Amino acid sequence: MTLTDRIEQSLAQAVERAQSPGVSRLSAALHYAVFPGGHRIRPQLCLAVAEACGDRDTRAADAAASAIELLHCASLVHDDMPCFDDAFLRRGKPSVHVEFGEPIALLTGDALIVLAFETLGLGATRSAKRLAALLATIATAVGAPNGIVAGQAWECETAIPLREYQRAKTGALFVGATAAGAIAARAEPGPWRALGALLGEAYQVADDLRDVLCSQEELGKPIGQDAARLRPSAAAQLGIGGAKARLEHLVQAAVQSIPECPGADRLRARIEAQTAMFFPKQLAREAA
Amino acid sequence: MTLTDRIEQSLAQAVERAQSPGVSRLSAALHYAVFPGGHRIRPQLCLAVAEACGDRDTRAADAAASAIELLHCASLVHDDMPCFDDAFLRRGKPSVHVEFGEPIALLTGDALIVLAFETLGLGATRSAKRLAALLATIATAVGAPNGIVAGQAWECETAIPLREYQRAKTGALFVGATAAGAIAARAEPGPWRALGALLGEAYQVADDLRDVLCSQEELGKPIGQDAARLRPSAAAQLGIGGAKARLEHLVQAAVQSIPECPGADRLRARIEAQTAMFFPKQLAREAA
Repeated sequence: MTLTDRIEQSLAQAVERAQSPGVSRLSAALHYAVFPGGHRIRPQLCLAVAEACGDRDTRAADAAASAIELLHCASLVHDDMPCFDDAFLRRGKPSVHVEFGEPIALLTGDALIVLAFETLGLGATRSAKRLAALLATIATAVGAPNGIVAGQAWECETAIPLREYQRAKTGALFVGATAAGAIAARAEPGPWRALGALLGEAYQVADDLRDVLCSQEELGKPIGQDAARLRPSAAAQLGIGGAKARLEHLVQAAVQSIPECPGADRLRARIEAQTAMFFPKQLAREAA
Repeated sequence: MTLTDRIEQSLAQAVERAQSPGVSRLSAALHYAVFPGGHRIRPQLCLAVAEACGDRDTRAADAAASAIELLHCASLVHDDMPCFDDAFLRRGKPSVHVEFGEPIALLTGDALIVLAFETLGLGATRSAKRLAALLATIATAVGAPNGIVAGQAWECETAIPLREYQRAKTGALFVGATAAGAIAARAEPGPWRALGALLGEAYQVADDLRDVLCSQEELGKPIGQDAARLRPSAAAQLGIGGAKARLEHLVQAAVQSIPECPGADRLRARIEAQTAMFFPKQLAREAA
């Protein structure tokens, strides 16, 4: 089975567990928020690291990867709501609150967070130490004071430091993905955190560039959000050329940071293929 | 240490872990949403059951109890938001969204959910089987399709069945509290579910009665919500006399449902003292 198949299958099983004909609108919204997905970059990264570390028992890695993607989906649903970005489009279709209303959108995010931890608990039961480590790693990546929720909360402060803001809002879950992949495969997570941090920063710089370079149709979500909301952006701080150079540097550094492990070559190839997609088409065209 | 001391201490430690001077508003809101608390009925119940089962290692029970209370607090913060109850008062002070704004209220609920599972993972690490069972039990009590989130989601359906709605919205976390208390003490959770279900239903009937009988000052939250929102209510369906009789029956049945265990007598006394507080003062006066 490919990594993609494993991810889609374990997400489908998780969302299925939360379904009930009684609460039909919440059930439909949970499915809508998770399928069809985007590139599933974070769970791909988690599974790729587990595989590179020589994972033989894939259940824990599958559980961690789908927990991470469910938490990512939850953050998108809540971020799009009127009190935050008020974004009407996500992955090329109406946002959850546009399609189902605000109450269901709020509940969908909550239910996805709970489902993520439930999924982790169901899949990673072979060792208490490993389950506890996965739980702590993933919770740190999404909660306060250093995870996604804290990243969003920086937007409510008067001064927003670019690095800390982006590290919490985007980087933390990438670090969570590489660390969880290593833990699932019974490897030490420490050496894998740099890869997650560098890829997370690269992804955020790419996202900032896309926000100014791409069209709404290409992205499947509203553009120009950083400028409109006065949010710090690498494109604004470094210029497009500077941001592109930073992105190239980060991708190279990420590939070089891969620790010694049984599947290092294959992982390098995977990371190179994945990060190639980070570059907006417009930049590739300009560079050509 | 009393059960109350244990609860307040472990909640304080959990909230402290989520604090950061950077995201100062989220940090303040997290504290505000948890302290000062209400009666802490659910964590009291969890610890009382663990104690009755002969719990000697209190760490797992403390972690489970505070996770349950953090999840309860999260549900209150999100329920009070404008897209749900639009309630301006909670525990006698302005609701989190009134005090801190909607974005921070949304994030506070999210952060409390994550913190709950993180707290559980940190406290219940001695046995994988026990951590996994606590995780599944608590997630079921709050997520979809049978927990608090589903209970809220019933309000978005066209027809709301009273029993299923209240079982999910209120009963599930009481069942989670008794089952988690048993699991934390290495006892079988099955026989303890009835106690949680009966107490949860009793609490909900009492809450419905308070909504029509008490003043806003007594409750510290807006009254008349069920009628205003056309929500099913035991007081409306059974009348005040009928609801009071039902409450008395449920409390008696709860006490009688307590399984054989080392601390059954003490637990019975605790449950009787706690449920005495369920009866609105107005009813006691009428009965006298």
